[in-house]
Amino acid sequence: MKDLNIGILQLPVSRDKGENLRRAVCAVREAAHAGAALCVLPEMWSCPYDTALFRAYAEPEDGPLLDAMRDAAVREGVYLIAGSVPELDGDRVYNTAFVFAPDGRRIARHRKAHLFDVDVPGGVRFRESETLTAGDAATVFDTPWGKMGLCICFDLRFPELSRTMALSGAQVIFAPAAFNMTTGPAHWELTLRARALDNQVFTVGAAPARDEAASYVSYAHSLVCDPWGRVLCDLGEGAAVRVVTLELSRVGEVRRALPLLAARRTALYRMD
Amino acid sequence: MKDLNIGILQLPVSRDKGENLRRAVCAVREAAHAGAALCVLPEMWSCPYDTALFRAYAEPEDGPLLDAMRDAAVREGVYLIAGSVPELDGDRVYNTAFVFAPDGRRIARHRKAHLFDVDVPGGVRFRESETLTAGDAATVFDTPWGKMGLCICFDLRFPELSRTMALSGAQVIFAPAAFNMTTGPAHWELTLRARALDNQVFTVGAAPARDEAASYVSYAHSLVCDPWGRVLCDLGEGAAVRVVTLELSRVGEVRRALPLLAARRTALYRMD
Repeated sequence: MKDLNIGILQLPVSRDKGENLRRAVCAVREAAHAGAALCVLPEMWSCPYDTALFRAYAEPEDGPLLDAMRDAAVREGVYLIAGSVPELDGDRVYNTAFVFAPDGRRIARHRKAHLFDVDVPGGVRFRESETLTAGDAATVFDTPWGKMGLCICFDLRFPELSRTMALSGAQVIFAPAAFNMTTGPAHWELTLRARALDNQVFTVGAAPARDEAASYVSYAHSLVCDPWGRVLCDLGEGAAVRVVTLELSRVGEVRRALPLLAARRTALYRMD
Repeated sequence: MKDLNIGILQLPVSRDKGENLRRAVCAVREAAHAGAALCVLPEMWSCPYDTALFRAYAEPEDGPLLDAMRDAAVREGVYLIAGSVPELDGDRVYNTAFVFAPDGRRIARHRKAHLFDVDVPGGVRFRESETLTAGDAATVFDTPWGKMGLCICFDLRFPELSRTMALSGAQVIFAPAAFNMTTGPAHWELTLRARALDNQVFTVGAAPARDEAASYVSYAHSLVCDPWGRVLCDLGEGAAVRVVTLELSRVGEVRRALPLLAARRTALYRMD
């Protein structure tokens, strides 16, 4: 299995959609020039993370924002997981990550399937379901490096979804995400490491840079974990573009040493 | 929900079964006197962790070893998860944890359902399936403090089994276990914290004390994690008897703040 160089684009998010777009295009170029063959943007990189704004910032798949992302993938010759953006489809708004190939094809689309509705006393309160519609599918897509899984932020909380992607062949699970200052310190690294370890895959969490002045403060700390559950890379708090090499042969090595997927006892598990 | 005081008995294991039994009986007494209402022993506390010895040390459920455990539960007035021992049933040997109530009833029995067959290059090699038979059920039992889940060591590796116990009502998942010096530092705390966080339950891992001279060296570090994924207590490496209070009302509080179990999308998950 060939190594894969991924570019993680931990960008700040402003209220100016045009500025967010220009910054994303520049970051894709920077990562490609640094050797990235696949780039990943954070959750809601085009729009402040605020349920009151999702509909106003939303565009359909054939709108100018996603056209510009497709163009960037083609121009830089990279696969591009265009983070997530508010997607307008008819009357509905989804939290959606589109994936473009270097030839301009849209090869995957994940709509966040578990909406973030929480109310932590003394911590964060947020209800995505006030304005968003949930997606209805797990998402795995083909690349020259093998199959890749894709989910968004709160989707990571559900071990069943990561397991589903791994059983469908994913070697890497990408998660554009924006944990906050309550759940981030408590759960971000733990969750990404556990999904990597349990499924013996790489996990990649791509988060917006931290902005203490925002209404919703991203924990940042974009993270890469290996199939042994180790943290390979942590991007810290500030804006950053980082290229990380994933030695994909590690997936098979770890699975041979510790054959977890093969040792499952499906008849014993209840899922209802 | 009432608080529950548990006693964790992190004991050394010698080749002398009688000595192991006497030590266990003393430890149950010590924990009960310190206020424990439910005690848990480690995996294979009666027998060195060695596939060549399991059959020789095995006893049927009505043998003297488990009779002594039942007597200890009655005498000290505690619930007793009698760790795990090699259990002989007909020709078969299981890695089994029995649970006794203070009135002497055997209220649960978990037979390790995922056998530990691993071969980590430069690390540990072990094949339980050479001598053991796997159990065929997830295990949850009733107590005055609510339902409790029970699994053994490698069973913890499988998020589906912990999920099954949580969906069946377990508020605490107990895991007699013996991670080793390869997998312990890498995965023990991560796995117990992740199972606690994902299922919003307490997890309790009870391990033998470390013995560097043993053929299989236990990592020890018996651990208690809370439903927010925090480590409440780590027993370190040496022999120890520790009483820890579980505030069971935390389970409901965390589930109300972050309603994970209610937000599952079962139609999206594949389990085959």
